[in-house]
Amino acid sequence: MSHVVELLAVGTELLLGNTANIDAQMLSRELSALGLNVYYHSVVGDNPERLRRAVELARSRADVLITTGGLGPTCDDLTKRVVAETFGKVLVYHPECAQAIRDYFAASGRVMTENNLQQAWLPEGCAVLENRWGTAPGCAFQSGENYVVMLPGPPRECLPMFRQEAAPWLGRLSEGVIRSHTLRVFGWGESQVESLLRDRMDQLTNPTLAPYAKEGEMELRITAKAQDEETAKALIAPVEEEVRVVLGPMIYGGQEDSLEKVVLEGLKARGLTLGTAESCTGGLLAKRLTDLPGASSVFRGGVVSYTNEVKHRVLGVSQTLLDEQGAVCDEVARAMAQGARRVLSCDAAVATTGVAGPDSDEWGNPVGLVYVALAAPEGCWVRKLRLAGARERRDRVRTLAANHGFDMIRRWLAGLEIETL
Amino acid sequence: MSHVVELLAVGTELLLGNTANIDAQMLSRELSALGLNVYYHSVVGDNPERLRRAVELARSRADVLITTGGLGPTCDDLTKRVVAETFGKVLVYHPECAQAIRDYFAASGRVMTENNLQQAWLPEGCAVLENRWGTAPGCAFQSGENYVVMLPGPPRECLPMFRQEAAPWLGRLSEGVIRSHTLRVFGWGESQVESLLRDRMDQLTNPTLAPYAKEGEMELRITAKAQDEETAKALIAPVEEEVRVVLGPMIYGGQEDSLEKVVLEGLKARGLTLGTAESCTGGLLAKRLTDLPGASSVFRGGVVSYTNEVKHRVLGVSQTLLDEQGAVCDEVARAMAQGARRVLSCDAAVATTGVAGPDSDEWGNPVGLVYVALAAPEGCWVRKLRLAGARERRDRVRTLAANHGFDMIRRWLAGLEIETL
Repeated sequence: MSHVVELLAVGTELLLGNTANIDAQMLSRELSALGLNVYYHSVVGDNPERLRRAVELARSRADVLITTGGLGPTCDDLTKRVVAETFGKVLVYHPECAQAIRDYFAASGRVMTENNLQQAWLPEGCAVLENRWGTAPGCAFQSGENYVVMLPGPPRECLPMFRQEAAPWLGRLSEGVIRSHTLRVFGWGESQVESLLRDRMDQLTNPTLAPYAKEGEMELRITAKAQDEETAKALIAPVEEEVRVVLGPMIYGGQEDSLEKVVLEGLKARGLTLGTAESCTGGLLAKRLTDLPGASSVFRGGVVSYTNEVKHRVLGVSQTLLDEQGAVCDEVARAMAQGARRVLSCDAAVATTGVAGPDSDEWGNPVGLVYVALAAPEGCWVRKLRLAGARERRDRVRTLAANHGFDMIRRWLAGLEIETL
Repeated sequence: MSHVVELLAVGTELLLGNTANIDAQMLSRELSALGLNVYYHSVVGDNPERLRRAVELARSRADVLITTGGLGPTCDDLTKRVVAETFGKVLVYHPECAQAIRDYFAASGRVMTENNLQQAWLPEGCAVLENRWGTAPGCAFQSGENYVVMLPGPPRECLPMFRQEAAPWLGRLSEGVIRSHTLRVFGWGESQVESLLRDRMDQLTNPTLAPYAKEGEMELRITAKAQDEETAKALIAPVEEEVRVVLGPMIYGGQEDSLEKVVLEGLKARGLTLGTAESCTGGLLAKRLTDLPGASSVFRGGVVSYTNEVKHRVLGVSQTLLDEQGAVCDEVARAMAQGARRVLSCDAAVATTGVAGPDSDEWGNPVGLVYVALAAPEGCWVRKLRLAGARERRDRVRTLAANHGFDMIRRWLAGLEIETL
């Protein structure tokens, strides 16, 4: 039988939007990796009656209930009391837990108020989940066909307790593993990729193949369920191969990659240096590159030439060209990239010039018209982008323009066509 | 009668932990501000039967159901179909929505596949919630005592659609108002501000006064509940006055402000121009300034001098100085700011040089040591920051360094002390 998990978070602060339900995301990932199916997330506030009904509902529709939050002294241990009552268990005092709580306060040099000791009362017959990251112990018990785990709310206590204490306890329920493999794609929209892969997405059941739209790019995720890691990988491999054949160089990396990371690693591997000349992206390319540790080994610097004067004076773009054609054209993009290569003494330089919005420029160029140029020893390439549309926001135009800049460098490094998508 | 809201998110990616339920947090905040009580969050996967049961449950325990996700072509419009069916409504084709979808694709120059048009089918008699941030329109309808709103899943579509389209529709349910007023504070940590205001925070009940830590700065929020807007404002005003007296120039703005926005507006108001010279922040200052529409009227440009060669060649920093003291020192920060002022012909220039990490530099300077300089016609100022500490990550060092740069400009514009905090 396949187990069904429900995650129930308790906390009015979640319902007020003061905090996000990070626990649910983290635990879902961990549980999937254990091969357990999470079918429901739910959240209720610090209200005994609504919590009781939520626990009863979870008991009826899932056989594994994992609660987060409502364990500490500030909430009167609401979750523990209500869950124990619903499953017909009394709370029992655990002197060793009380000692651990006293020790925790002593070690951190804080005064312990007596209400903290109520955390040492736990449902009869439960396994105690030790809390080495805070004060409230967690617990786990079986009741008939139901398995119940209670974890503290703060993510920095919840996650390590799950991994080190709860996951081994849940190990008995695990049937095989779920593994995902992600491919990152740049250059086509979600619906275009889908129309190419729709049939396969519909046919596949294990592994499954699913697209996810991200800002200016997309992901394809292949997810397999199997008895063990190796079988899961063997299920994923042929589907990955198939997708790679269809999408080819559109695929630029995996789960942990980003366009800038692939660029940085490619430059490092080949011992090449990079510079930037940015108009409409205003420093975004440089910022994204230098977000990454180790950028200094390949990134020499950049010029944010937000005025024509800076384009001319610092990058050496011809004043006549700027006067006659304006800053947003193919030739200026080229001259900026070539100027940056020279001024910054780097192997390759990427440049952007365009209209990020919200208004068109004084030459009448529409929002979203962007030229992205790459200058390298072998030559200079330009992409003309029309990212326009009333709904393309300024930040999206900038993000997409920067993505195209990174994509051009990546393609240059990989020996692929650069100007085309 | 007080309305009860349930937020129901649809998406297997949430149950796998691939994404966090950001929509629930954002919408909870917005709904609280409208005076509506969110009692439940729930999440189900892309499964019609479980979704149907979740919708039925929500109908029975809440009178306002807001769904997020499951609207686009990739999920076969699951949410719309199931919700419509549960409330006994048929889907009707909306030609104007189909046209909007076609326009969206045309404007962005992408090919529209036919499956996108499915999004134009909406429950009969609903109010269409226009999507100006993506393709899937949302909708809202009343059915007996239940109010239903369906929103797209991507947060950048969900939130603006809620604010601009759904919130006015829900306005009819609101009883009284909750109004918040936020003060943004830069320069002191949360615990310092708290120790100054703790007593007042504890005493106040309506309005309440609460601190929120943000990345490198903090917010103070004054929240009042009242029958109408004017009464709420009258409750907030004296508390704001009181806080302003205590914190003085630490307060740099309100809810909609950011340090860079205050800087941009201050420069605009005084007709002054700005330039940047960035080492450790690597373009972050320029990027944040140019995130804002209208930056081009005051921001002339910047130099990201990630190597000493660029600091010397482009900004004119003395080679002897760089050789003898290294790049991370007071004098280099000054020379960079003054060089940028000259090269970029601007009224003021701000410069950063420091160690963002993860490792200390070749001169043995520790991670988190950063010099931030401001050069203006009246002189040049430097702040020496020690942002070190095991927990100061690279991105946090960079964010804080940039915040200090903006804070120095803001203080210069306002005629306040610049080097001190």
